[in-house]
Amino acid sequence: MNWMFRNGRGWMVAGLFLGFAVCVQAQLPQIGAQVFIEPGQTPEDVEQWFQILEENRMPVCRIRMFEAHMRRADGAYDFSLYDAAFRAAERHHVKVFATLFPIDDTVGGFKYPRSKQHLTEIAAYVKTLVTHFRAFPALYAWVLQNEPGTGGSYTESDLAKELRTAWSAQQPVEKPGRFRETHFDYEEFQRYYTTWFLNWYAEQVKALDPNRQLHVNNHAIFSNLPEYDFPKWRSFLSTLGASAHPSWHFTMFRRDQYTLAMAANNDIIRAGAGSLPFWLTELQGGNNLYSGGRAMCPTAEETTQWLWTTLGCGAKGVIFWSLNQRATIDEPGEWGLITFQRKASDRLLAARTVIESVQAHPELFTTTHHHASGVTLLVTRESFWTDKKQRLGGNDAFEARRGNAGMKSTMAWYEALMCCGISAEIMEMDWFDWNKASYRGQTIVLSHQISIPERWWKPLERFVERGGRLIVEGVTGYFDEHQVCIMQNDFPLKNLLGGEVSEFKALEAIFPLEIEEQTLPVHLWRGEIVDAQKPGNVRYIQRNTFGAGETLWIPSPIALGALQGSGQPFVLFVNREFAALKAEQPVTFKTPEPQMVLKTLDVPNGYVTVVVNKGKKRKVSFTTRPDVDAAQVVFADKQVTLHGHVATFGPEETLVLFWPKRAQ
Amino acid sequence: MNWMFRNGRGWMVAGLFLGFAVCVQAQLPQIGAQVFIEPGQTPEDVEQWFQILEENRMPVCRIRMFEAHMRRADGAYDFSLYDAAFRAAERHHVKVFATLFPIDDTVGGFKYPRSKQHLTEIAAYVKTLVTHFRAFPALYAWVLQNEPGTGGSYTESDLAKELRTAWSAQQPVEKPGRFRETHFDYEEFQRYYTTWFLNWYAEQVKALDPNRQLHVNNHAIFSNLPEYDFPKWRSFLSTLGASAHPSWHFTMFRRDQYTLAMAANNDIIRAGAGSLPFWLTELQGGNNLYSGGRAMCPTAEETTQWLWTTLGCGAKGVIFWSLNQRATIDEPGEWGLITFQRKASDRLLAARTVIESVQAHPELFTTTHHHASGVTLLVTRESFWTDKKQRLGGNDAFEARRGNAGMKSTMAWYEALMCCGISAEIMEMDWFDWNKASYRGQTIVLSHQISIPERWWKPLERFVERGGRLIVEGVTGYFDEHQVCIMQNDFPLKNLLGGEVSEFKALEAIFPLEIEEQTLPVHLWRGEIVDAQKPGNVRYIQRNTFGAGETLWIPSPIALGALQGSGQPFVLFVNREFAALKAEQPVTFKTPEPQMVLKTLDVPNGYVTVVVNKGKKRKVSFTTRPDVDAAQVVFADKQVTLHGHVATFGPEETLVLFWPKRAQ
Amino acid sequence: MNWMFRNGRGWMVAGLFLGFAVCVQAQLPQIGAQVFIEPGQTPEDVEQWFQILEENRMPVCRIRMFEAHMRRADGAYDFSLYDAAFRAAERHHVKVFATLFPIDDTVGGFKYPRSKQHLTEIAAYVKTLVTHFRAFPALYAWVLQNEPGTGGSYTESDLAKELRTAWSAQQPVEKPGRFRETHFDYEEFQRYYTTWFLNWYAEQVKALDPNRQLHVNNHAIFSNLPEYDFPKWRSFLSTLGASAHPSWHFTMFRRDQYTLAMAANNDIIRAGAGSLPFWLTELQGGNNLYSGGRAMCPTAEETTQWLWTTLGCGAKGVIFWSLNQRATIDEPGEWGLITFQRKASDRLLAARTVIESVQAHPELFTTTHHHASGVTLLVTRESFWTDKKQRLGGNDAFEARRGNAGMKSTMAWYEALMCCGISAEIMEMDWFDWNKASYRGQTIVLSHQISIPERWWKPLERFVERGGRLIVEGVTGYFDEHQVCIMQNDFPLKNLLGGEVSEFKALEAIFPLEIEEQTLPVHLWRGEIVDAQKPGNVRYIQRNTFGAGETLWIPSPIALGALQGSGQPFVLFVNREFAALKAEQPVTFKTPEPQMVLKTLDVPNGYVTVVVNKGKKRKVSFTTRPDVDAAQVVFADKQVTLHGHVATFGPEETLVLFWPKRAQ
Repeated sequence: MNWMFRNGRGWMVAGLFLGFAVCVQAQLPQIGAQVFIEPGQTPEDVEQWFQILEENRMPVCRIRMFEAHMRRADGAYDFSLYDAAFRAAERHHVKVFATLFPIDDTVGGFKYPRSKQHLTEIAAYVKTLVTHFRAFPALYAWVLQNEPGTGGSYTESDLAKELRTAWSAQQPVEKPGRFRETHFDYEEFQRYYTTWFLNWYAEQVKALDPNRQLHVNNHAIFSNLPEYDFPKWRSFLSTLGASAHPSWHFTMFRRDQYTLAMAANNDIIRAGAGSLPFWLTELQGGNNLYSGGRAMCPTAEETTQWLWTTLGCGAKGVIFWSLNQRATIDEPGEWGLITFQRKASDRLLAARTVIESVQAHPELFTTTHHHASGVTLLVTRESFWTDKKQRLGGNDAFEARRGNAGMKSTMAWYEALMCCGISAEIMEMDWFDWNKASYRGQTIVLSHQISIPERWWKPLERFVERGGRLIVEGVTGYFDEHQVCIMQNDFPLKNLLGGEVSEFKALEAIFPLEIEEQTLPVHLWRGEIVDAQKPGNVRYIQRNTFGAGETLWIPSPIALGALQGSGQPFVLFVNREFAALKAEQPVTFKTPEPQMVLKTLDVPNGYVTVVVNKGKKRKVSFTTRPDVDAAQVVFADKQVTLHGHVATFGPEETLVLFWPKRAQ
Repeated sequence: MNWMFRNGRGWMVAGLFLGFAVCVQAQLPQIGAQVFIEPGQTPEDVEQWFQILEENRMPVCRIRMFEAHMRRADGAYDFSLYDAAFRAAERHHVKVFATLFPIDDTVGGFKYPRSKQHLTEIAAYVKTLVTHFRAFPALYAWVLQNEPGTGGSYTESDLAKELRTAWSAQQPVEKPGRFRETHFDYEEFQRYYTTWFLNWYAEQVKALDPNRQLHVNNHAIFSNLPEYDFPKWRSFLSTLGASAHPSWHFTMFRRDQYTLAMAANNDIIRAGAGSLPFWLTELQGGNNLYSGGRAMCPTAEETTQWLWTTLGCGAKGVIFWSLNQRATIDEPGEWGLITFQRKASDRLLAARTVIESVQAHPELFTTTHHHASGVTLLVTRESFWTDKKQRLGGNDAFEARRGNAGMKSTMAWYEALMCCGISAEIMEMDWFDWNKASYRGQTIVLSHQISIPERWWKPLERFVERGGRLIVEGVTGYFDEHQVCIMQNDFPLKNLLGGEVSEFKALEAIFPLEIEEQTLPVHLWRGEIVDAQKPGNVRYIQRNTFGAGETLWIPSPIALGALQGSGQPFVLFVNREFAALKAEQPVTFKTPEPQMVLKTLDVPNGYVTVVVNKGKKRKVSFTTRPDVDAAQVVFADKQVTLHGHVATFGPEETLVLFWPKRAQ
Repeated sequence: MNWMFRNGRGWMVAGLFLGFAVCVQAQLPQIGAQVFIEPGQTPEDVEQWFQILEENRMPVCRIRMFEAHMRRADGAYDFSLYDAAFRAAERHHVKVFATLFPIDDTVGGFKYPRSKQHLTEIAAYVKTLVTHFRAFPALYAWVLQNEPGTGGSYTESDLAKELRTAWSAQQPVEKPGRFRETHFDYEEFQRYYTTWFLNWYAEQVKALDPNRQLHVNNHAIFSNLPEYDFPKWRSFLSTLGASAHPSWHFTMFRRDQYTLAMAANNDIIRAGAGSLPFWLTELQGGNNLYSGGRAMCPTAEETTQWLWTTLGCGAKGVIFWSLNQRATIDEPGEWGLITFQRKASDRLLAARTVIESVQAHPELFTTTHHHASGVTLLVTRESFWTDKKQRLGGNDAFEARRGNAGMKSTMAWYEALMCCGISAEIMEMDWFDWNKASYRGQTIVLSHQISIPERWWKPLERFVERGGRLIVEGVTGYFDEHQVCIMQNDFPLKNLLGGEVSEFKALEAIFPLEIEEQTLPVHLWRGEIVDAQKPGNVRYIQRNTFGAGETLWIPSPIALGALQGSGQPFVLFVNREFAALKAEQPVTFKTPEPQMVLKTLDVPNGYVTVVVNKGKKRKVSFTTRPDVDAAQVVFADKQVTLHGHVATFGPEETLVLFWPKRAQ
């Protein structure tokens, strides 16, 4: 069986033969776009959307199934507009992710039912919709809900009350004797309720269309992360997805960091998906006028970068938002990949070039896995929540008190590691596998995770005991899961970290910290570790060995310091600390390279690296492991050249290389 | 009959003989001030206010008729305080604009009744008041309401509900088949309701005092404009007025632009008034302590500039706010033309100098008309409303998304044209005369008017067909009147403008745009026009001929760009585009003169120009039409000199010239 | 009887013998700390807190008596945790200020009862608590409420309504004939209600524990001042206290002004206390993470400065907030004097050094009084309230309209006088003694006190008539107590000040004002005084003699100007104006010294000065009165040296000197 067609149409035909379930297992990543169907479009319009997809080698699309468009005043459904779309999709060999979208008057759709009665209405819509569309050959997957996640609240209702009562009854009885200032019940229940509702959707659909792919796209992952119980979602989803629109979701980054943020977003989703395939189900395709927190139009170069970077993160598919522009509601005329005359924009041309490159290399891209570097940045949902609770009325003179400090800090580590050529995993603590026999070669970083719940104290010890390396930085571990300060008395991580903090001291927005022979800019607080050797003295860094592993502790926000001040000292610090781990990577940068993104895929017989230059024109030297041979160019922007291990980049350029494994 | 008295008192006496109705038809512009009457003032105090007016040659005043001051606890009215005022006015030959002011506890008065019951109470007050005061000889006009206009909302009530139901029933049935995302019903009804209420007031008054002048002063015109249906107001008003307090109403301008803004404010009111005379019924006369959005005290020079500029716009009168200071309510001790000791401030002395100059030239100022340059800046109310609706939660990183972008953009054109010596008309589309046989010599500019309702598509075509010139700039015409993007498919202005936009692209807050041989700074979005000659290429400017006229289209915000970055390239662009029209003006600047205001009046046998220097000391060269002879100085600040066509100005100085028509 | 023990323990023992009531009369100032008791603490923990106090020579503590910790679900009280604390206090010779703290869910406690029912519940708690704890020997004082003061509002309830009705009935009938725009009834009632509630607490306690000291600590004095009727409080309190946490309460100051602000805070409390002793009952002892408006950790040097400065203001005691950190509620792990390991922080070591120094000099510190310089800065509560009312919606382009301008302005005088070596009194007008036979040598400054109520017009005249000097600056006296402008007509202070303002003019945020031969930077408004000599001319400064005294009037905000621009010209102006008064001080600076704090105590046979350098390393020359002899060093930071009248300071250093009176 030969999967390695060079032609988009060809493999789709094969795909149709073999059934999609197989397809997903072993096929090229698929790139497509949202088709926006709305009243006012003629059948010719609809036909044209799919023709454009086919012409641009896009075998997949997503369609939002607006109940508002289908349901007539008398309660009957008129599916004709959408029937036309599904038939056009079929004609043009495009498979469809169909998004459930019950009647609503917001741009993104409601996230929770308004009542039990509302739930019944939703069920009726889902039943009617699924019953009708399951017969269409073009249908590939149901997207259960568009962008669950609300920034931390749920809709109160009779349904929510009933579910919460039941949920509360199931919570474990607490051990007496501990101080528990705060219970994040509201937040935990919201997390549960989101999962419950998605699962409810899944059950409605499965009852009628049991073998269909089920998908959900989360969004705004850098702030909504604590709401998502991805491990639980895996039980009812076929694939996990995400929306990643820089203008909405990357506002905590500068524009030259958007490709980095795209990598991070994908890395988080991949971690959340676990063994499920993941897709980038909404990628900003076009311009903002009035939508987007910070308006932008992606350039062709960014489109290339984001696509390759997403593939470099191991995504099995990408769907742009959107092919065509909607005409109404907050964002009329925005986001499109095509022009108002339905010609290809420069972004669509760029996407097509990437698609052709992927399709030209089936030997590389049919089975790929993101290459794990061995470094994991862990965050706790309680850190998000505690950070939010501790934002006492308007106290935002300092970055660390302006919200989401833990994620900002973590992303500073992600970026610094990336400058060294190391691509870190990022995940919530719950998603990590704490039960391995050995963690040799593994590093965990806890960057300004202010709340470390009791349930992680032992696992963290076990991780280090079994050979792992733990790096703890910032005000990590100040609180437990009840907003209680646990550093005051018998700090539970004392043995693990080899010390205790005596005090934190609020100093300046940026102040210098001398550790070992380096000076790092630090933000706001200086954590002072009791010096076991010299009582009365304090230390700012503590290294410890614990079991077979080791720890490094700097209880001052050096990563937030890097964000607020110069990042260079922090990058050099990270580069030194990870020298040994760098040597383990198949391909890294010889010296730290700021404003570069590097993602590595494990492919048959070697590695594929996606490298993006977000800085000025420059030369970049790669270092490879002894078992890695000289690279072959898979894709290169126009000014890029490669001579041995040295690549020359123009600004904004992308280079994709295949590094074969050296014959042993 | 000789109207040309040189003495203020003299012509007032004549006025009294002939009746005011005649007066308004042909008399010198009248300048006066608000007299603030309030409890605590003695009869001597009241006498003194009018004595000061007379001494300063001010034959007109305005008085707010506080019901709160007149109505006793038992419901009876005590008019004595106001009677004294009207009698003092008569003694001092001052005529009175009396403002209806039913009981209210806000500084500016309520704008809509709270209920039908409230309306009945208001009617009773009006009846009592008008019945009492109509007999006073000093009474000249009723001001129906102080400053209608709320920034876009009305007071919900049983009355409003009833009126809205009736109003809705009268709205035309919509044609099927078009997409209509939004209906600006709330806004349209508010506009209707404001008109309804003013007309209701007019009817109450007319029933009792049928031959009296009726007046209304709007305010904050740069933002309240869409609420005002001036053409409808004309049916019940005698004169239209305005409040123009820089500290409250000009906050979108810099202080050195206030005189320009004063000109624009007057030009808008004149356009709204149509064939009715217009007055500036509230002009900031004094200092702010706590009131005013940006506190200021007008200088004597500004007072001179604002008065002359307002007269240069064709106003028939100006009333300062205020002669004396109120003692209470938000602005005690503020705004006055006189000192706390009731002496003339430097502003009052400046005003008196202007008054004397006007009165010294009855041959020039008795019948004047603003000289129409042939350029009209049109705005649509739907652009205001759409701009507001599209302000999605807090997205204000860019000026174009911070509110009122269409008016800001339009004012950049007004300023640039003024720098060229061309004074543009400014009006809402509804006020323009769309039914002329020819528009040769006429130019319309649509600057960033994001909503162009369907009802204007044909009229715009007709305007150009019949010889007009249409300049379209910014994101004009992106939406129809239903917040639907109409550029996506069959752009309705395609034929007129000679092209279609393929895409807008959000770039930077300021980026350079190359058009023809110029580089203009542009704000945020680049509109790309499909190049009919080279498919796949784009253009940033499109010129077209259509019928007997022509169009110029730059679908990028170059005017907002001029505001955000350097304005010079934009001024030079405008100067080039309007070279032919400049040659048609009686008097213009030889080369563009930033920070100058120039207004031209048609007067018997020639033109009067008011010229104000808001920049540094400088020489300014005028260019005149061949039929215009050498100028005579009517008024000149102290350092100003005129040699032939070259005037030398000190900073802040004003020059008024009479340019006779050359004997043919 | 010899009180002058050199040992902290020793004199405490003596104290216990003699009873505390005597102690308060004549004992060394006492320095201690808040002990935070909360569930989760073991008896050993509690024991340790008091052991630490004793080791550090701290004989006094404060404990918050959380009803929430004591009251069980069945309504019974479990006092065991607090019993342990009181017994430990006794064992370690620590006396306790016990703060009443009925059940509440806010960090600082409620300020008014929620209802009459709630009042009954509070009474029950107080009864139970006082009955139980009055028997403990360690109990020293009851703190009736933690930090009364809300920023201007009270909790509406049936109780509040009933009290307000009764209060209103007691208000004097107003004379007719005056304009009264505003009645500050809400504000006056709140002030009354606060006093009522504190007195109610006092009565509850006295009924059960009649001879106990009663105390209250106010807070945020720079903004809450108008709420506090301190003269009335004196009738039920034994001592007056204050919270002064720079991170919460000094946000209108820069950090290098915090020591100055600490002095001002103490000076206000001392003035409020009258003949009662005053304590600084909460002084920031440690770090902020999330609490504090502007997070900080006091340095050891600041701790030294604040302690000495507070003692230099005449405080009889200081209690740090807090010894140990609370584990929960908004500020877990914050504010502590000890480390998480319960070791002394650098701050506690610094405090102990000060304590030892005080205890080493009983001959100086047992009976001390703040030395009165003869200058008093007076504020009116109506100025606070009028300033707030005149903050019309969001008009904050200028500092004078951003709130609390009168206090900011007053503090600029306080600082400028301090630079000259003169420590001014600060008080509300009501606290001043207006009935002296002579005010020779006394100066009152009214700095931008925009409201001067009628009841003060005569007393101000009397003050000057009897030899006082009155300095009036800024927009002082613009309003009466009814928000009515009283400068318009017959300005009531005309005779006293020797003139009238003709106008205020809003100019720039900073503009220069020429007065006499100086140029002062002024903020926003220029007040123009009618020139009696040259009509039509204006003056910016007016000097007048009135009776035996004199006045100086500059009706322009020169103090706010000093805050916004350079402060130097203002300091030089003040130094010149106060040359004669400087000569009367025992010790001052020879030339103005910016960034220095100097406080003088009258001690037996001489003076003690506390001098703090908040600037760079420098030499400071003192000038002394002829009757003052050469200084002896009581306390000096490490780099400080004294040679004759010249001291050399390092940055942040404190010097305490004893200046004996010269033998006559």
